[in-house]
Parts: sequence; C-alpha cells; structure tokens
Amino acid sequence: MADAVTPRDEDYSQWYQDVVRNGQLAENSPARGCMIIKPNGMALWENMRDQLDQMFKDTGHQNYYFPLFIPERYMEREAEHVEGFAKECAVVTHSRLTQDEEGDLVPDPESELGENYIVRPTSETIIWDTYSKWIQSYRDLPLLYNQWANVVRWEMRPRLFLRTAEFLWQEGHTAHATETEAVEEAERMLDVYTTFAEEYMAMPVLQGRKTESERFPGAVDTYCIEAMMQDGKALQAGTSHFLGQNFAKAFDCTFTNEDNEEEYVWATSWGVSTRLIGGLIMTHSDDQGLVLPPKLAPHQVVIVPLFFDDDQEGPVMETCERLQERLEDHGIRVKMDQNHTQSPGWRFSEHELRGVPLRLAIGPRDLENDNVEMARRDTQEKEVVPQDGIAERVSDTLDDIQHALHERAQDRQADNTRVVEDYDAFREVIGRGGFAWAHWDGTPETEARIQEETSATIRLIPFDREDHEEGEDMLTGEPSEGRVLFAQAY
Amino acid sequence: MADAVTPRDEDYSQWYQDVVRNGQLAENSPARGCMIIKPNGMALWENMRDQLDQMFKDTGHQNYYFPLFIPERYMEREAEHVEGFAKECAVVTHSRLTQDEEGDLVPDPESELGENYIVRPTSETIIWDTYSKWIQSYRDLPLLYNQWANVVRWEMRPRLFLRTAEFLWQEGHTAHATETEAVEEAERMLDVYTTFAEEYMAMPVLQGRKTESERFPGAVDTYCIEAMMQDGKALQAGTSHFLGQNFAKAFDCTFTNEDNEEEYVWATSWGVSTRLIGGLIMTHSDDQGLVLPPKLAPHQVVIVPLFFDDDQEGPVMETCERLQERLEDHGIRVKMDQNHTQSPGWRFSEHELRGVPLRLAIGPRDLENDNVEMARRDTQEKEVVPQDGIAERVSDTLDDIQHALHERAQDRQADNTRVVEDYDAFREVIGRGGFAWAHWDGTPETEARIQEETSATIRLIPFDREDHEEGEDMLTGEPSEGRVLFAQAY
Ligand SMILES: [Zn+2]
Ligand SMILES: [Zn+2]
Repeated sequence: MADAVTPRDEDYSQWYQDVVRNGQLAENSPARGCMIIKPNGMALWENMRDQLDQMFKDTGHQNYYFPLFIPERYMEREAEHVEGFAKECAVVTHSRLTQDEEGDLVPDPESELGENYIVRPTSETIIWDTYSKWIQSYRDLPLLYNQWANVVRWEMRPRLFLRTAEFLWQEGHTAHATETEAVEEAERMLDVYTTFAEEYMAMPVLQGRKTESERFPGAVDTYCIEAMMQDGKALQAGTSHFLGQNFAKAFDCTFTNEDNEEEYVWATSWGVSTRLIGGLIMTHSDDQGLVLPPKLAPHQVVIVPLFFDDDQEGPVMETCERLQERLEDHGIRVKMDQNHTQSPGWRFSEHELRGVPLRLAIGPRDLENDNVEMARRDTQEKEVVPQDGIAERVSDTLDDIQHALHERAQDRQADNTRVVEDYDAFREVIGRGGFAWAHWDGTPETEARIQEETSATIRLIPFDREDHEEGEDMLTGEPSEGRVLFAQAY
Repeated sequence: MADAVTPRDEDYSQWYQDVVRNGQLAENSPARGCMIIKPNGMALWENMRDQLDQMFKDTGHQNYYFPLFIPERYMEREAEHVEGFAKECAVVTHSRLTQDEEGDLVPDPESELGENYIVRPTSETIIWDTYSKWIQSYRDLPLLYNQWANVVRWEMRPRLFLRTAEFLWQEGHTAHATETEAVEEAERMLDVYTTFAEEYMAMPVLQGRKTESERFPGAVDTYCIEAMMQDGKALQAGTSHFLGQNFAKAFDCTFTNEDNEEEYVWATSWGVSTRLIGGLIMTHSDDQGLVLPPKLAPHQVVIVPLFFDDDQEGPVMETCERLQERLEDHGIRVKMDQNHTQSPGWRFSEHELRGVPLRLAIGPRDLENDNVEMARRDTQEKEVVPQDGIAERVSDTLDDIQHALHERAQDRQADNTRVVEDYDAFREVIGRGGFAWAHWDGTPETEARIQEETSATIRLIPFDREDHEEGEDMLTGEPSEGRVLFAQAY
C-alpha cells in the first residue's frame, strides 16, 4: 500500500503533499519549480479543460495559439506590466549549445540572440501587438479569443499545483469597441468561472474586485473569485481583468468607429490554471486522501472484482464486465480494477487515495444474491444494493455526492466567516483561520499595515457594495465605504 | 474579398502561402520562426488532436505532462541525441530582467542560472530520468504514456506548419520489459498514424523504416510514414522509434525481471505534429484555396441565407435555422453565414478559401420550391436538391467527399511513382517531381552522393523487403538487397 496520509490537524502542509503524491496527481521534476503532472492529474485537468472550453465556446469564444516566446522589447511597452512580470521570467539568450574545452555543454557564444526572448508569463503584449494588425474598423470587433497554453513565472517557493514555475492555463483575450462591452465581457467570464467552480468543482466561491495593490499589472480593474480552503485560508481561483485601453495604447491598436473616428480598442483578459487542482484538493480531500467531485473525476466508479479461487474468477469477472457495460451505457466513467494479486483492503485503499467517488465490489456471495457492495468515497458509507437498477442508483448517488461535497464546503465556509467590528476580533478570526468581513478606510497604507501585522490581505471588495453599510476602519477609525473580505491566502 | 490565390503551376511555394493566409490558418509572429495559429487552424488541429487522442487511448495509453525545461546536463547523457539537438535549441540562462543604464530591459546578471535549461526539443531525456525512478520491477511495466505539448527547435528557414521554431505535437514514450514488446509497440503506433492519415486526413501514406542517416538521434530504428505532396515531393508525416535500451542505459533505468535479474528497460517514442496540417494542405487544396476532408474540417457545412429585401429575411432565416438544427441533430458541424452585407459571390468565395467541404445556399426562390442549392468544395459541382431528406443527403455527400479526396490523392501518388532501373531514369523522375523505387547498395556514401547530385533522399526502406527482388545499385553497380523509396522531401 502507498504511504499513509498525514492527518490534516497534525501537519496541514504535509497532508497536502501526501494527498497529491498518493493521489498520483503530480510530482516535482528535475527542472526546478516545474512539476510532472501524472496520468491521474492530467486526466483530471483534461476534464476541467474540456468543460471550461465548452463554456467558453457557448459564450462565443474561439481558440487560437500564440508563440511561447515574447521579444524582450514587447515587455517594456506597458509600464505596470513589465514591473509586474520582469522579476520572475525565464530569459532565452542563445539558440545553440556547444562543448567547451572540458567537453561540457555550454551556450554557444556565437549563437547569442540579437534580441532576447522571454518565455511567456502571460501573453497580453504579443497578442495586442498582433491585434493592432488584425483590427482596423468597428466591423472587425469584437474579437473573442482564448488559448490553452503553458506559461512560466519563476517561483522561489514552489508548491505542486499551487505555485509552480511552469503551469498550464487558459488565457482569454478579447477586444471591444466600447468600454461597456468590455466590462460586460469581463463580468461574463467571471460568472463562467463562478459557475464552473460551484457546479463542477463543488467549490463555493465569493465574487468581487481586487484592491489596487492586488490588481493584475496593466489592468484597470481585476475581478476575482475566492474560495476557502480547509485551513480557512483563501485561494484565488480565477481572475478576469478589464484592461481599459492600456494595452491598446501601448501597442497602438486603434479602430475606426461608426462615426469614422479613430479610437483605441477596449480590452479584457481572463484566466484560470492548474492551480485550480490545488483548490479542488484543499476543498474536499480528507485524511484518507483525495476526494474528487464526480463531475470532474477521471473515473467516477471503480469496480472491484473479488474472488478467492480460480472457479470463482469466471462468473465474478463476467458479472463485473456486464455491470461496467451497463454503467458506461449510462455515460458513467468506469474503471475496472484488474489488480488480482493484492488484498481487497489494499485495493480499496488505493482507490480511496486516488479519489474515485464510488466503489462497487462484487464477490461470490454477491453473485448468489444478485447484489453489489457500494461504497461512497466522501462519507465512507457502505451499502449492499441489488444489481437490478444499478445504473440509475449509481447515477443518483454520484449526483448526491456532487451535491453533498458542495454543501459541506459551503457550510464550512459559512462557519468560518465572521463579520468583525474591531481589530482584536479580526486578529482572532484570522489567527484561527477564516474569512473576516471588516471595514477598511480604502488606503493602500492601511492595507499594507494589516498585512504586515496579520498576514491577511484584502481578498476582494464586493460588487454590491452600495447595499452594505458604511462604517469606520477597524484600525485607523477613518471612514469606510463598506466592508471588504480579509483572509490569509495561498 | 480576400486576395486571390496564386495558381500552383505558377509558383507552388507562393500558392502554399496564399492558401494558408486565405484559409485563416496561421501567420508569422514577431518571435522569429514561431507561428500564430489562427482560430480556423486551431479548430482543425483540435479535431486532429481529439481523434488521435482517442486512438491512443483505445490502444491503452494515458496522457501526462512533463516540464518545458530540460536541465542542460541531461542532454549530454545520450551521445547521438545531444549531437542531433544541441545545434538548434533555445537556451534559458537567466530568471529575471532588469533595466540597464539606458533604461533598456536586459537579463539581470545576478539572476544567471547555476545550470542552464534548454526548452525541450523532444522529451526523451527528462522522461527517462524520471522513468528510472518510476520503474523497479517487471510489475511496473509496461508504461504506456503520451503528452501533448509545444516544443522548440531553432529553424533557420521557417515555413508555416512545415518548419517552425515552435510547434505543437504529441510525443508518446513507452517502457517495456522485452525487446519484442517494444518493437511491437513502435509498429502498432505507426499503424495508428497510418490509419489516421488514410481515414481521417484522406492522405495516402507509405510505411517503412529510415536509413541510418535519417534515423532519430538515439534510436535503434525509426519507422515512418511518407506522403506525396502535389508537387511530387515527400512529406514525412509521422515517426515511431524503437529506442532499444539506449535511453535506459543513458539514464540508468533498470528493472528486476521475473527471474529476479536486473535488466535495462526497452523503449519507444513516437510523434506527430502541426506539420501534418502542412501535409493536409498540400494533399488536397487547389487554386481556389483550402480543401479539407470532412472528418477533420472545423465546419463541415456552411449555410448561406440569401435575401434581397427585408420581407424575405424572416422566412429565409427561419428555413436556414430549421435546416441547421436538422443537420446538427445528425451530428454534422454547421456554420451559419451571418454576413448579410456582402454579395453572395464574395461570401461563397470566403467559404471556399476556408475549405468548408459543403455549402448550402437558400434564397427566396428555393423557399417556394422547398429546395436548397448544394455546392461541393472539392469538385465545385452545384446541384439543386429538395429540402426533404437533406440531412441524409448531406451526410452521404460528406462521405463521398472524404472518399473522393482519398482516391484522387491515391491516383496522383500512383501516377507519379516509378520503378526505375537506371540513374538517368531516376534523375528524370526526381527532376519532374515524383517518387522513385530504385536499387541502392546500402552505403551512406552512395546515399549522400545521390542526395548531393539530385537533392533526393531515401524516404524509406520497405518493411516487406524480403519479397522484393535483389538487384544492383543504379549508381555504383554494387549489389542491392531490394529497392528503396527516393524523393525530394519537405
Ligand atoms: Zn448545493
Ligand atoms: Zn478510398
């Protein structure tokens, strides 16, 4: 059996690593800070990608693909953007290796590039340079495009899925004739992310906008969704940026409007990444390992045939295969456990560690009674059920699990979120791990001071702020326009 | 209307560029040698990827993902491999940009990496380093994995899809306990590529093995499929390598066999790339632009509503939308032309340039007669057909087109392939563009001399060579064990 999982309350960070490793999701690679996504992790990401991709297409977007390399000079064009990304990027300076006198491979000095390339940390610059060629008239707008790609941001403290030097993501880049349309697009995509998080990941999220200091470099406004992890910390699960005309101005991207006037184009960009897998793990998994929502699990059901001598093998396998076929006919993703050499306990535990939502075990006794033993991963409940009508029952149970995971996460979020009136209460909530709604005077100085003293950051300013009551900053006593959400964050 | 397409017989290379540009498939990017894959090109690649991915899964493979970066020292481990790839790779030497005295961005000298990374040109090295950790016993074998990824090989003479510095591809990497099993795997994947080329791309291919000089760096044997382009040149469309124990030895990857002995693991790797799109274009397209096989076309059918005053718009659109629904219910991928401002001729030509296999046009007259005008992209034939039973008719016509494209390409290949007995005849066949089956004495020297004199290379040595007659090398007169296939190649 794989190594045991460290309990959460013993060492949360070790628990996370154990869940990732035993869940066969990913491991560290010899390229520092970069991860190897293993087959179980990749199948999970592909399910997430396919679902999101469908939602992007349903909202009118198409995919394209831009180069991995961005010419160095492009980074200089948008001042905040370069400020935000220049400090953590991989720089390509040579196009050839050669052997030095000792026979070691070194960059060939003669292959030094006239202009260096950086490996994309995000693609606004190269994309807006191209948009300036694609867009002439209002008739060319809007452009509603997305790409699935790998990006690199050098990481000093890498952590599988949560912070890796290379990660997989999607980045949407849209161009619009009006500010209103661009803002609507940024909001629409935040809603798409919200729907995906809630309905597919079963991960409740809060929506809002970022403060200036947490904004995407180059954005006018950054919208975000934030989720609560099991330790009460926040995870930023997706962002959607209203970029105004910043990149259009930096790359001289204008269009002729219906009144024949030249205007700068309005922009959005939005993205989610393999970081979501980190969020998924820390929302649902337990001390027995990975727990996955049925809608995204690579396999929704594992069938475990149990037999103890050769005579039993034929009839048991036959029943299991018939069962598999019936479930697959209902569109259920089924894995057949073919590992006949290990004990049932070992095999059960393997599937638990991998987060398969539902386990069906069939042995000789079940054959006699036309039964199946059904075990839920989330509650660990076992039940003996008739083989008759099994597909409907499995299907209903998977729905139940999906819903139960969401409910449990929602309850936990509610239980660990507090409206606080003063700084002592605030420190107490943040200290034990939780979300705090508190008044803030709106200044970056106060924001910075609170972060310094408590490690908590402002996760979001709610959109419906007008409805909230005004008050006084818990620290400075200065007037506040409404509460904002604080938490420590990943 | 988009720019016209240069006829093939006027300037073949310009024709190719025109087809790519007007087909909205790809364009050059500011990162030298890297391409931007546009939405029509990306949708085509996604269809190819999804089909191949299904075929990989049906043959027992799973996807994973390895890092973009490979530590420099890994390249040194397999001698032929480094020889093959060190001369054309992107080298990452710094992890940060900073501003110099003039305010320009430059790599921060303090961020120089202790060990440089190269951007993967292919991933055997980093993968086999990891396999040496994953594999201990024969029970861990086989490993049957694949990844979809971007790779970089510096290109001095880039050409969209055919040769680009960055390209998208898949690379399969499998590990086996025996030589036989590994050879079988390499053959199996070549068959998968063959089926894909013939049945989905409608592109006939020939199978065989490469000569030593054309082998993958580090392989024991490279199997390939070769297709004939419309100018009679060959395109290598896919390769599958039997790697023997070369990478296992380089990365010390051993396993304990059933007899408890330590052995090196046997390996294969296999890949196809966005280069296939270049092959697809040069197999089927014509002087009117892109022609796509229905099985891979992003849209299989475009519906063009035609009306000349506002009264007609409602009824015409209604019929077109009903039609769309009926086709989509049959699983047909349909695009509705919403461009009502341009002339019918302009719109028809746009869809031709984009390679949509079938066009359905409906105007007021067709409404009266319950008809549709149906036009095939491949033959340019038009036919007025009843709306009744349209889905079945469209479906059958798409099958016809798929088959006709394959037949036409097969005929062209047969017409331009010659069995030649002497060097004069050989030069003649190669000179006018074509495949030549000729005797060769088996030496790299003769191979090199023929290439120097005629630009033709040995595309493959057929698998069923025993059945071929022996003979004499057309150039040297030395004994030959059978004919090999020569052609100029992309
Ligand atoms: Zn619910
Ligand atoms: Zn045929």
